[in-house]
Amino acid sequence: MTRRFPKHELERFVAEVMRVEGLPEADAADVAHLMVAADMAGIDLHGIFGLTRYLPRLRAGGINKRPKIRIVRETASVALIDGDHGMGHLVAQYAARTAIQKASETGIGWSGTRNSDHEGAASVYATMPLEHGMAGIYGAVGIGKYVPPWGGVDKLLGTNPFAIAVPTAEGPPVVMDFATTVTSIRNARSKARLGEQLPRGWMIERDGSPLTDPTRVSEGLLLPIGGYKGYALGFVLGLLAGTLNGATMGEDAVDIEVDLHRAPGVGQFICALDLAALGDAGSICADVDRVAWEMRRSAPLPGFDQVQVPGDGRAARLRDREENGVPIPDALRVELSGIAKKIGVRPLSG
Amino acid sequence: MTRRFPKHELERFVAEVMRVEGLPEADAADVAHLMVAADMAGIDLHGIFGLTRYLPRLRAGGINKRPKIRIVRETASVALIDGDHGMGHLVAQYAARTAIQKASETGIGWSGTRNSDHEGAASVYATMPLEHGMAGIYGAVGIGKYVPPWGGVDKLLGTNPFAIAVPTAEGPPVVMDFATTVTSIRNARSKARLGEQLPRGWMIERDGSPLTDPTRVSEGLLLPIGGYKGYALGFVLGLLAGTLNGATMGEDAVDIEVDLHRAPGVGQFICALDLAALGDAGSICADVDRVAWEMRRSAPLPGFDQVQVPGDGRAARLRDREENGVPIPDALRVELSGIAKKIGVRPLSG
Repeated sequence: MTRRFPKHELERFVAEVMRVEGLPEADAADVAHLMVAADMAGIDLHGIFGLTRYLPRLRAGGINKRPKIRIVRETASVALIDGDHGMGHLVAQYAARTAIQKASETGIGWSGTRNSDHEGAASVYATMPLEHGMAGIYGAVGIGKYVPPWGGVDKLLGTNPFAIAVPTAEGPPVVMDFATTVTSIRNARSKARLGEQLPRGWMIERDGSPLTDPTRVSEGLLLPIGGYKGYALGFVLGLLAGTLNGATMGEDAVDIEVDLHRAPGVGQFICALDLAALGDAGSICADVDRVAWEMRRSAPLPGFDQVQVPGDGRAARLRDREENGVPIPDALRVELSGIAKKIGVRPLSG
Repeated sequence: MTRRFPKHELERFVAEVMRVEGLPEADAADVAHLMVAADMAGIDLHGIFGLTRYLPRLRAGGINKRPKIRIVRETASVALIDGDHGMGHLVAQYAARTAIQKASETGIGWSGTRNSDHEGAASVYATMPLEHGMAGIYGAVGIGKYVPPWGGVDKLLGTNPFAIAVPTAEGPPVVMDFATTVTSIRNARSKARLGEQLPRGWMIERDGSPLTDPTRVSEGLLLPIGGYKGYALGFVLGLLAGTLNGATMGEDAVDIEVDLHRAPGVGQFICALDLAALGDAGSICADVDRVAWEMRRSAPLPGFDQVQVPGDGRAARLRDREENGVPIPDALRVELSGIAKKIGVRPLSG
């Protein structure tokens, strides 16, 4: 049902596809690296799986193949970045690098983006500051509108993701990465393929009653985590990532599943905080390890083998996939082979 | 059952009590203003209600009456502040002012605190940047440990609150302010006074089953919002607010309800982001209003009168309390009168 492929082979494949589709060589390599980074972390729906969604939009003009990503406004610690409608991966990477550079100079850096696009997994960018001894905070306007404001029925919001990464000295870095909804629209749809009902609490009908029929996902409303709290969090993340940067959010957000030609013009923010601004970075990192171990040492609840710290699952998946490759379901492999054949790229092998 | 008192009378009362207890006059006035600000916003459990909890700790030495709050380390955009175990309100205010000052110079400012204390309502500090045309992001290590790590039974975490405020041009500012748990320990305890069971989903027993008996709250575990997502959020907020600043978090956190003598040494962070760094602040604020109105205009779900934006409830309560005063339950008024009599301060009147 699934076969595993090594990271470098997935990266080779994505880079070749992107190059053939018209991206400059360096951009194609970067997109490949950033897309497969999501697969490596086990966030499969944001990895190579997404390739099949980006290609029609690259061809239809919804994504700019040769964007001029640039800083359009900046202060010592803040930058506003225009993504020129390029692949979101490239825009978010540019934003992260800019924030890291500013943080190395002033202690903290903040980048906002506009005219960006879907960037894959939030934690790919939130973790970029880690190797510089910095914490990363990342938020994005989720592409696609499946979420109403709390108490409403109009789908005005995305699943606006939020990720925070904090470096450690020895253990796996602390990495939080979640959508502000109970589940994603793709997860909900996948229940139909599995022939399963949606659990209560995932979605509601427009009359407020639980929606459990997986074939009716497109009619339903995704619920935020924690009721009004998750709505509030998703909404303010949308302001910080979108509205403050002149990016789309709310009514003007584009449904890219319906409109392949239009660029969604979404936004992101990333903040890099240099631990050295607060003290000796090495000893702060050791303190983070200590606190993380306090959590892991907690006696588990019945039904739990052990207590984890955010990022532990990611670290385990990274190790597994480094050693054994990324599992690719047959259906996805066949789809990718079809793409490869059509454009003359060597299919996934290994 | 309740009587209403004007803001200035509550502030007069708190300031006099604080002065008699030994705080310098300016600090007493600041504490009064910041404490009553929570009452004005309708966050009653973090307002004058808390006075009865602070006094025994001020007297026992758990809170330093005359702290030297100071910056112990700083860069252009980041400051680490030592609260010298003073009232948390004063420390958090100092941190907010420092962050705002730095943001006015570099676009963003970040303050972390250590040796701080309970500061009341998170949004009181998150909203301080608003009048400077800045957004505020605030997190704290919640005092008291009632929350286990996800899947664990050991109470190692607080209800670690998170607040974000974004300025608007005309409408009420957008203000998110929540604990990362489904409810607070005080809310859970209040059910006993009301003779009500705890709703399922608020707390669990150490065997994982729902705890609904309100007389057994101290034996139970508070649940995070959104399951593991809320745990992850609370944990990383604790790192940013506590561990990165050399403040307590996890095992070394002090239970101030048990130990009145020891300073909890908790931490907070506040970030101020200058909208002018990202564009024309006035037009960004107008865009925030526009998006907020898009939410409010959504057709409501059955059972909802209207859709609100985070901060709308706060704005309505502020208006009501400015006009009609803050409702104080008789039991609290009697308790405050008892304090007043004992230390020779004029009781609440008006």
